[in-house]
Amino acid sequence: MIRHETQIRVRYSETDQMGYVYYGNYAQYYEIARVEAMRAAGIRYADLEREYGIWLPVVSMNVRYLRPAAYDDLLTLRTFVHPIEGSHLRFDTEVFNEGGQLLNAARVTLCFVDSVTRKRTSAPAWIIQKLAGTIE
Amino acid sequence: MIRHETQIRVRYSETDQMGYVYYGNYAQYYEIARVEAMRAAGIRYADLEREYGIWLPVVSMNVRYLRPAAYDDLLTLRTFVHPIEGSHLRFDTEVFNEGGQLLNAARVTLCFVDSVTRKRTSAPAWIIQKLAGTIE
Amino acid sequence: MIRHETQIRVRYSETDQMGYVYYGNYAQYYEIARVEAMRAAGIRYADLEREYGIWLPVVSMNVRYLRPAAYDDLLTLRTFVHPIEGSHLRFDTEVFNEGGQLLNAARVTLCFVDSVTRKRTSAPAWIIQKLAGTIE
Amino acid sequence: MIRHETQIRVRYSETDQMGYVYYGNYAQYYEIARVEAMRAAGIRYADLEREYGIWLPVVSMNVRYLRPAAYDDLLTLRTFVHPIEGSHLRFDTEVFNEGGQLLNAARVTLCFVDSVTRKRTSAPAWIIQKLAGTIE
Repeated sequence: MIRHETQIRVRYSETDQMGYVYYGNYAQYYEIARVEAMRAAGIRYADLEREYGIWLPVVSMNVRYLRPAAYDDLLTLRTFVHPIEGSHLRFDTEVFNEGGQLLNAARVTLCFVDSVTRKRTSAPAWIIQKLAGTIE
Repeated sequence: MIRHETQIRVRYSETDQMGYVYYGNYAQYYEIARVEAMRAAGIRYADLEREYGIWLPVVSMNVRYLRPAAYDDLLTLRTFVHPIEGSHLRFDTEVFNEGGQLLNAARVTLCFVDSVTRKRTSAPAWIIQKLAGTIE
Repeated sequence: MIRHETQIRVRYSETDQMGYVYYGNYAQYYEIARVEAMRAAGIRYADLEREYGIWLPVVSMNVRYLRPAAYDDLLTLRTFVHPIEGSHLRFDTEVFNEGGQLLNAARVTLCFVDSVTRKRTSAPAWIIQKLAGTIE
Repeated sequence: MIRHETQIRVRYSETDQMGYVYYGNYAQYYEIARVEAMRAAGIRYADLEREYGIWLPVVSMNVRYLRPAAYDDLLTLRTFVHPIEGSHLRFDTEVFNEGGQLLNAARVTLCFVDSVTRKRTSAPAWIIQKLAGTIE
């Protein structure tokens, strides 16, 4: 299982009038966490689409929100990539603030889709191998 | 249990380069569905914050994505409001396209928070009563 | 010159921690104003892309912000469509609150692009004609 | 005059179905450019609001769009901060792609507002001094 960390700074536009990050904006953070975890494993998501004709739409997202994030906070996104099973790819991402407190946690599942036929497809062998690494 | 329907048209800004609505943008739609369901029950969310000092942060969100929505689609958001238990308020929202196909379904749970103390609080009796209506 | 009005309700997600609509989110409102003004003139923007292979990227945007909009405000977007000149299409949109106060005003200029060659192209005659209507 | 550069990577959520960054999303990039330029000059915008009771709402934005940005592009934001005049603060930001091409350029003007009275106020002397530095 691959484990990856990246950081993100909260933008003003991402807050709402409650003074915290809007609950829906974390989906963008989880996406960045996934893309950077894949990049670290040698997979550039932009190339998956452009060169391999693979889309990875999200099929489910489950989030628990524990504490809010504030403007200008520097957040740490810790992501675990599960080994691929069939056409599914699963990521668990935890978001921490600078004090090390867990703010929220998400499980997001994607599936491999052929961008031409727009049908589900199985994961290419090279992706399975790159994502089957042990924890760094 | 209250049941409510509202409609929304997909904005260009809400699509991504896959040509469909970005998975994270549905959280905005679910919010609109909740706000309009509450308005129909006689509760204006803007007043809850301004006049009653009540915040309703989201504590969990679970989404299943079945089919994509496209630009300019007119979507129907069908929402069920669960009877309030303690400090929690739960909404189930289903999103349908013009052909009546279910695109995705979400369960979002919020909790009542006092905006001054920023601590959880129980739901005011008048809100419980307004949301305890039978299906319209 | 075509003149068109449409309404929009401010979403919670569109506010920021100042308690008003984030300055960057008005670009989405101006887009809705343009799309609805064109729809009223008999042009569906979604069809322009899908059926006619025409893109309308924005080439300039100028905005003056006078007063803020708040959550749940019902805004009126008043739009003037300038007669097409060459490959350019220009919209002026004013945003009013429920009290009739002007909140902000924008001029947005787009250009016609062929989505296959990705080069500028002149406006099709039928679009020029549809947008050359007198004020309704 | 202060000059500052920062970098930003395009998120998937920021693209639209044309396959490029949505025109309205650049306002977020300009905001990041301003915040980081101020941070480099010793001013943390989050503190301005929280500790000094100063808001900096945008009063005008003018953008010219020359070329599109694509998903996963690493963009460079080059910002010039004009010397403060009265209650106004003006930033010019240019966005470049990895090939050094200018993609778009914006002038954004903000004004100093007292967050309690919500009236315009003059810029505090310490901010004027910090932003009066010569080009680094």
